[in-house]
Amino acid sequence: MAAKYYVGIDLGGMSAKAGLFDEGGKYLAKDTVKTSKSDGYAVTVKDLAGLVRSVCEKGGAAFSALSGVGIGSPGIIDGGAGKVVSWTNFGWEDKSLASDLSAQLGGVPVKISNDANAAALGEAKFGAGKKYTDSILITLGTGVGSGIILNGKIFEGFRGGAGEAGHMTIVVGGIPCPCGRRGCFEQYASATALLRDTKRAMFEHKDSAMWKIAPSPEQVDGRTSFTAAKEGDAAAQEGVKNYIMYLSEGILNLVNCFRPQAIIVGGGVSGQGDYLLEPVRKYVNEHLFVGFDRIPLAIICAALGNDAGIWGAYALALDA
Amino acid sequence: MAAKYYVGIDLGGMSAKAGLFDEGGKYLAKDTVKTSKSDGYAVTVKDLAGLVRSVCEKGGAAFSALSGVGIGSPGIIDGGAGKVVSWTNFGWEDKSLASDLSAQLGGVPVKISNDANAAALGEAKFGAGKKYTDSILITLGTGVGSGIILNGKIFEGFRGGAGEAGHMTIVVGGIPCPCGRRGCFEQYASATALLRDTKRAMFEHKDSAMWKIAPSPEQVDGRTSFTAAKEGDAAAQEGVKNYIMYLSEGILNLVNCFRPQAIIVGGGVSGQGDYLLEPVRKYVNEHLFVGFDRIPLAIICAALGNDAGIWGAYALALDA
Repeated sequence: MAAKYYVGIDLGGMSAKAGLFDEGGKYLAKDTVKTSKSDGYAVTVKDLAGLVRSVCEKGGAAFSALSGVGIGSPGIIDGGAGKVVSWTNFGWEDKSLASDLSAQLGGVPVKISNDANAAALGEAKFGAGKKYTDSILITLGTGVGSGIILNGKIFEGFRGGAGEAGHMTIVVGGIPCPCGRRGCFEQYASATALLRDTKRAMFEHKDSAMWKIAPSPEQVDGRTSFTAAKEGDAAAQEGVKNYIMYLSEGILNLVNCFRPQAIIVGGGVSGQGDYLLEPVRKYVNEHLFVGFDRIPLAIICAALGNDAGIWGAYALALDA
Repeated sequence: MAAKYYVGIDLGGMSAKAGLFDEGGKYLAKDTVKTSKSDGYAVTVKDLAGLVRSVCEKGGAAFSALSGVGIGSPGIIDGGAGKVVSWTNFGWEDKSLASDLSAQLGGVPVKISNDANAAALGEAKFGAGKKYTDSILITLGTGVGSGIILNGKIFEGFRGGAGEAGHMTIVVGGIPCPCGRRGCFEQYASATALLRDTKRAMFEHKDSAMWKIAPSPEQVDGRTSFTAAKEGDAAAQEGVKNYIMYLSEGILNLVNCFRPQAIIVGGGVSGQGDYLLEPVRKYVNEHLFVGFDRIPLAIICAALGNDAGIWGAYALALDA
């Protein structure tokens, strides 16, 4: 039997990253192409086709042996229809990305999904969630991204609108969110929120050890309060405790609604590992409608880092 | 071909109600048996078997033509395993209700699910949600119940723990809930919450027209504030507006997570019809991550009333 190859693409606003894989899950080659809003849709599709061909060449795979392409794309994606319903940053509306790219590739099947969903699929199939059929990836970054995997597949709801867990309100009337609501989960649990609250705590506590770690506000990052908390600084410990409480509240909501087998936490803040997750596990178990004794739940760190999206796109390609 | 019959049972803490149906969905007979915690599990299973036989007799169906039984039961139900994981009120833990009842019925297949899930399935298959494959039923009663239907089937998550939308926190640190959390959706959107807030508003506004409708606090019910609001009473209108805001916030969370095609609202408060739901639709559309223009969403009243659970149990029986 001839070898089969697959390409997974993580599409972003600055670049598209592609990985070439064989059917056994071997990651053979990687390539990148710049992307820009000013290119427009048609040029971007052509560039993606070029990227697919170049990563095949780089990895020594005959293009004729290419059996599927997967893409994780920003925006609202209707995977079933192969359409980008809307990608605001690039001004894309109702674009048939899957069939348009497939046409550029001589008919190779293409499957698309939202980038956060693709990352969740990557973690579920090849990363931290391998043992579970149902998992939710929560990414703590600029915002709070999420992807929901049910029965080993991306759950994207009607026309791709599901899985926007960062925009659950956890505080009615709370901090305004660019999405138009107030009190969204991501206004309390994102790295951005952590940074904002760390700076506020530092200004309220001029004697905090956080000032030694970050002598000026520009030097504050997502690690500042955690580092100071570990050293015993009271203001930092208070901030970390507060952050963990909000993160746990959002996770609790998802668990009470979806009851997955695992919550996988990714993004920069997840670098804190068990120092972050052990108190989250404790809080969640204590406040859950059905506790871990009756229905176990794993709360674990993501394993694939920035490559989760490419791995997930590869999983989409296998299914294309 | 011989006729086939099915029995759907809505199990509760005071009684179990059974409906006899043919395979075409004709509701042929109804019967009831008392239930009580003091009976214990074994007696209750026997009583349910007796109920199945008696409703068959009542409807003129030969027991030998009975092809399936469905049960909607309170508690945490693992439908896949046919088990009651936990029903606190009756003290049931890890009971194999499906196989135990089937054994009492000479092997007739039995399928079980949570009662709120069964009601959601009933509405989805035979009631307000017939046009949709994905819908969520929210029942505004003593608490806020919910059932999630995806691809025409109950979504119950790992071991039946999903669909507890009443226990999403929408106000971190808010009103305490018996579930152990604070600020749960049901503390703001249940009929109980509406009653509490109506009484509070009446005591704050001694001149409100609500006092004419309910001259004493004991006479206040879920309609009081709505009736006065329609008559133009300002305090009542404020209360109704507040209730609608909280209800909408909870619905928004569910839509951002699940993006179903329809949200079906049941329970006593839903009797207000479009006076309740039209402002909910407006609020939800305005605050949604992806608005109705891109992805339509129906927000509608339940249609089956108290029979939703029996109809849903019949749907389970068809699938048994």
